Amino acid sequence: MLPWKGELAGRLDVDVISSELLRGNPLGDPAERPIWVYVPPGYDGSDERYPAVYVIQGYTGHVGMWANRTAYRQPFVETADAVFAAGDVPPCIVVYVDAWTAYGGSQFVDSPGTGRYHSYLCDEVVPWVDERYRTIAAAESRAISGKSSGGFGAMITPMLRPDLFGALATHAGDALYELSYVPEFGKAVRFLRDYDGDIFRWWDDFRSRTAFTKECDSELLITLGCSAAFSARDDGTPELPFDPRSGELRVDVWDRWLAWDPVRMVDEYADALRGLRAVWIDAGTRDEWFLDLGAQAFRDGLARIGVPDDRVQFELFEGTHMAIDYRYPMALAWLALRLAR
Amino acid sequence: MLPWKGELAGRLDVDVISSELLRGNPLGDPAERPIWVYVPPGYDGSDERYPAVYVIQGYTGHVGMWANRTAYRQPFVETADAVFAAGDVPPCIVVYVDAWTAYGGSQFVDSPGTGRYHSYLCDEVVPWVDERYRTIAAAESRAISGKSSGGFGAMITPMLRPDLFGALATHAGDALYELSYVPEFGKAVRFLRDYDGDIFRWWDDFRSRTAFTKECDSELLITLGCSAAFSARDDGTPELPFDPRSGELRVDVWDRWLAWDPVRMVDEYADALRGLRAVWIDAGTRDEWFLDLGAQAFRDGLARIGVPDDRVQFELFEGTHMAIDYRYPMALAWLALRLAR
Amino acid sequence: MLPWKGELAGRLDVDVISSELLRGNPLGDPAERPIWVYVPPGYDGSDERYPAVYVIQGYTGHVGMWANRTAYRQPFVETADAVFAAGDVPPCIVVYVDAWTAYGGSQFVDSPGTGRYHSYLCDEVVPWVDERYRTIAAAESRAISGKSSGGFGAMITPMLRPDLFGALATHAGDALYELSYVPEFGKAVRFLRDYDGDIFRWWDDFRSRTAFTKECDSELLITLGCSAAFSARDDGTPELPFDPRSGELRVDVWDRWLAWDPVRMVDEYADALRGLRAVWIDAGTRDEWFLDLGAQAFRDGLARIGVPDDRVQFELFEGTHMAIDYRYPMALAWLALRLAR
Amino acid sequence: MLPWKGELAGRLDVDVISSELLRGNPLGDPAERPIWVYVPPGYDGSDERYPAVYVIQGYTGHVGMWANRTAYRQPFVETADAVFAAGDVPPCIVVYVDAWTAYGGSQFVDSPGTGRYHSYLCDEVVPWVDERYRTIAAAESRAISGKSSGGFGAMITPMLRPDLFGALATHAGDALYELSYVPEFGKAVRFLRDYDGDIFRWWDDFRSRTAFTKECDSELLITLGCSAAFSARDDGTPELPFDPRSGELRVDVWDRWLAWDPVRMVDEYADALRGLRAVWIDAGTRDEWFLDLGAQAFRDGLARIGVPDDRVQFELFEGTHMAIDYRYPMALAWLALRLAR
Repeated sequence: MLPWKGELAGRLDVDVISSELLRGNPLGDPAERPIWVYVPPGYDGSDERYPAVYVIQGYTGHVGMWANRTAYRQPFVETADAVFAAGDVPPCIVVYVDAWTAYGGSQFVDSPGTGRYHSYLCDEVVPWVDERYRTIAAAESRAISGKSSGGFGAMITPMLRPDLFGALATHAGDALYELSYVPEFGKAVRFLRDYDGDIFRWWDDFRSRTAFTKECDSELLITLGCSAAFSARDDGTPELPFDPRSGELRVDVWDRWLAWDPVRMVDEYADALRGLRAVWIDAGTRDEWFLDLGAQAFRDGLARIGVPDDRVQFELFEGTHMAIDYRYPMALAWLALRLAR
Repeated sequence: MLPWKGELAGRLDVDVISSELLRGNPLGDPAERPIWVYVPPGYDGSDERYPAVYVIQGYTGHVGMWANRTAYRQPFVETADAVFAAGDVPPCIVVYVDAWTAYGGSQFVDSPGTGRYHSYLCDEVVPWVDERYRTIAAAESRAISGKSSGGFGAMITPMLRPDLFGALATHAGDALYELSYVPEFGKAVRFLRDYDGDIFRWWDDFRSRTAFTKECDSELLITLGCSAAFSARDDGTPELPFDPRSGELRVDVWDRWLAWDPVRMVDEYADALRGLRAVWIDAGTRDEWFLDLGAQAFRDGLARIGVPDDRVQFELFEGTHMAIDYRYPMALAWLALRLAR
Repeated sequence: MLPWKGELAGRLDVDVISSELLRGNPLGDPAERPIWVYVPPGYDGSDERYPAVYVIQGYTGHVGMWANRTAYRQPFVETADAVFAAGDVPPCIVVYVDAWTAYGGSQFVDSPGTGRYHSYLCDEVVPWVDERYRTIAAAESRAISGKSSGGFGAMITPMLRPDLFGALATHAGDALYELSYVPEFGKAVRFLRDYDGDIFRWWDDFRSRTAFTKECDSELLITLGCSAAFSARDDGTPELPFDPRSGELRVDVWDRWLAWDPVRMVDEYADALRGLRAVWIDAGTRDEWFLDLGAQAFRDGLARIGVPDDRVQFELFEGTHMAIDYRYPMALAWLALRLAR
Repeated sequence: MLPWKGELAGRLDVDVISSELLRGNPLGDPAERPIWVYVPPGYDGSDERYPAVYVIQGYTGHVGMWANRTAYRQPFVETADAVFAAGDVPPCIVVYVDAWTAYGGSQFVDSPGTGRYHSYLCDEVVPWVDERYRTIAAAESRAISGKSSGGFGAMITPMLRPDLFGALATHAGDALYELSYVPEFGKAVRFLRDYDGDIFRWWDDFRSRTAFTKECDSELLITLGCSAAFSARDDGTPELPFDPRSGELRVDVWDRWLAWDPVRMVDEYADALRGLRAVWIDAGTRDEWFLDLGAQAFRDGLARIGVPDDRVQFELFEGTHMAIDYRYPMALAWLALRLAR
């Protein structure tokens, strides 16, 4: 394998979508967003319609990163293409969606703290794609997939919009917040000691210098960004779900986060989940945020509400949260075989 | 300083207390317990009465460990003696209490899972000491002190028995359970994968071999022991507060633990706490269980309910959870100056 | 800053160089190599000649990675462009060289284990660039720069070829091998326990599956690759510098590595080093391979042999070995100001 | 098992030896040293003579620590007694020797930096014991055993004095210094940044406050102490084997250390080693100082010089450097079966 190049069997269109819903968003982020649409080999010479898989990213990810190359591996754009190149997996359109914000992410929800990223994804990106590409424009032929925060988005979006998405894949998706988020709050409190307990002082500092040159940066960024997504005030100000000096949970704010825990959402959205054709769930057994346990708990939730086992692919694989991109094409192939066509 | 010996200015009596309350305890632990009582210099030649400080231990600690020697430091028995040897701190009796169980500890509560260690401490040990030593047998002259689980015991015992204890010192005491315990549950779940999710299979394994030769041992021991202390069934069987495969909290069981979180107990026991003469709270800023945050939250709770600042000594010192025994004599001296005499 | 795009003020040419020296290399790696050449703003409209800075990569890096995007930062191709875009730093040509091998790198030396990468760089890449671009084709106008293994290459290449390179920048470059490599050997031995002490069994395993899905992969890859670079037999077989079961150094093989330690090369190549116009040395104070100490030792060596202080820029900055790409444009600007023009 | 007490089947004599050789030692440490001698069950009622096993300690250990109790385990004094209590292992005398210094240890060598601890052990302690106890006063009936620095002492003492010691047990003994010591030097250099590169400034600081309250303390103490043992100047001043700012090895000083590496001593002392009746070597596979590799290298050395396999017990067990005291009685029993009687 040559490390420095990859030719595609299909075709990747690099485009821009102009979002009305993101216009005037509270962080001043652009309303024009990059969007990459992959069409599989054979698309151009046919008039067939195809299922579509929407791919969203983890925290701090933006669509331009899908082309990043690493040693001995190929970017997902290429490994996704390889899924269809051999011809034994039925072809799909793959849509790479951008939901970046100045805080590093949106969690794919509508929030006065970051913007209307859920609606943008569902009511703008999906129609935009359906208009321009020969998709099968139906939930049973549309999946969503992602890792980490992207896995979270992939879990919640079909719950909220079963009319749009009928399948999902979550790789180490955020879930079981007591285990994945609360320990991070403890670290955040310690980091905030250098900022007099004020996360906005850190934010000012962060923007004034090279990012990620302090140990606290990653932790505080995600804390701030998720507070903006899950617990912003009406005026958009993020509220931390914990006391910034003691880490004690602020019950009312924390409850707003918990309302977004996929594990806790299972019962409320049981009908939507039972309507899904295919659910891929995996995570590394040593995930740094215990997302293997979140995956297990989400999977247990599906069983509890009666999602049939044959619609669920569950695996805890040996690994951490890092360098697990080789799992994405596995899920893509599995979904491609199950989407209606 | 000679490392290998220490002569005391006072006197340490090594004795045994025969407990009625521990007789027939569910773990078959002995009802005869070692008890060490230290009397300060001058005690023997006088008929003065003295305040008493009760010292309890952290998890897996037993009274015999107070004599352990480490490099460049002296055992607490000796550093406690040194507090009074110089003569500038008013003398106290110091009582070293044993509350060991087969699970490594009792958390100093009454439980069908371990035994009646709270009652043993309050209704047997205290009277035993008062009968045999010239103590000032009043709450305002009686303090309790400990580290880690011992710090926890030192926080809760005066809340439950303000008639007995009028002062306390907690060094890195267990508190703010969402941060101190929940991440441990995540680790425990992973360790239990080797035991088919069954902590009793681990327990059988643990007892069959040299203890602490597997990485999981410490974690699972404390998980089991605290379940026995906080959430045993009526028949004594410990119930885990989480699903052993997913880590998902079992709300009803977990609530039994939270009912023992000193941070959450503050409001219910506000009167008792407001009646205390002296409260020492400290922890290391890098405590492995975030007990610095637990300390802060407990201290904030005292402020919230109106405990006057001049009764509280609060410090987060540079350090971890380990090797902090040098803090104990500092607290002892501070308490000695505040106990009524 | 928009995270997902960057326009250049200058121009980046993406090209391929066909190497005679790499043809038939022992690993079967391609002789056609990508090469990226950046020309600064103003280049196209003028007939000026420019100094050139050659940029080489760390272990497992290949030229395609220079375009990788990360959150809140821009790729070096863009930050390098920004150095010249403002106009206050005199313009340079920047050449991104590829020296990838199947083992992940070449260490930029000639070796029967990997190929003639040193000669390829000096005798093929440099003339190729000088023929096609308006460089000032003299050592005093040519610098080389890199990080980690690239920093190593940037130190040794001007020592070996002072006729070609008159300046260098090393960011956390490999040096002081007792501290940077030997501890890795210890880890390698432990990893090799799963492969019966045979690194080639690991290599077969590594090539048969997704790379970097085992903890041992990174460690063993660099061990094998550096053995191929520094201590291959005449037939190309890499020889480990240590006993694969005990870690004991094999003195004769280890001496071949030490002969490539920049710290030890200083005296032999003192004349070449004294002839350099500019030497940038930096590293993070917490570098995982102690390369801050390697940097200090190399800097001390330059002082010892009489390189004047005003030609050396030395800094240990707060940081690790990771995410230090923001240092590269700092060095580039500093070099640009010192290269003869 | 009751955790807080242990009765012995044999008898432990706690005594003091007055050393002429330690009198006036350079650190001002006491010449009167504690010595513990254990006699096995049956000793008192008989006139039999017994083999003797000398037990020495790891760095910062002193003889008083042998009584330390830990959870779920018993002190070595008790587990050693248990070896003989059952009656199936032939009885031995066990001698617990103290070789503490103000620097935390002596490495059991004679040095102008610490004192004549090797001679004290061989020429004073051994005769003292032989005079007072019914030992079989011959090398073939005398063993030495220890862990870590004690394991080192147990390896070198019989090499230097085969006339005295005919068997040894080393648990994770210091060896293969490139792997065990050099990485520590890297850490030491970083710690010394806070002391302007001057280890004596750290030493002054260390003595002025509670020991081990700074992260650097353990590292710098052992660095200083081993420099005092291995590379003191004639006037007793310890010389570091590395440049305190760059970590670069000072070859001449480092060679003095290497001369004390058991792995390198094997060939010089081959005759002595070939004369040993029994050699126990073990270490944990994850030893923090790579002493598993040191153990392997020492064992390989014995094979190389022709020590018969049936005299060597070698094992790498699952574990780290910590909490491995349960290995000591295993070695003691093995030695007891092999000493001449």
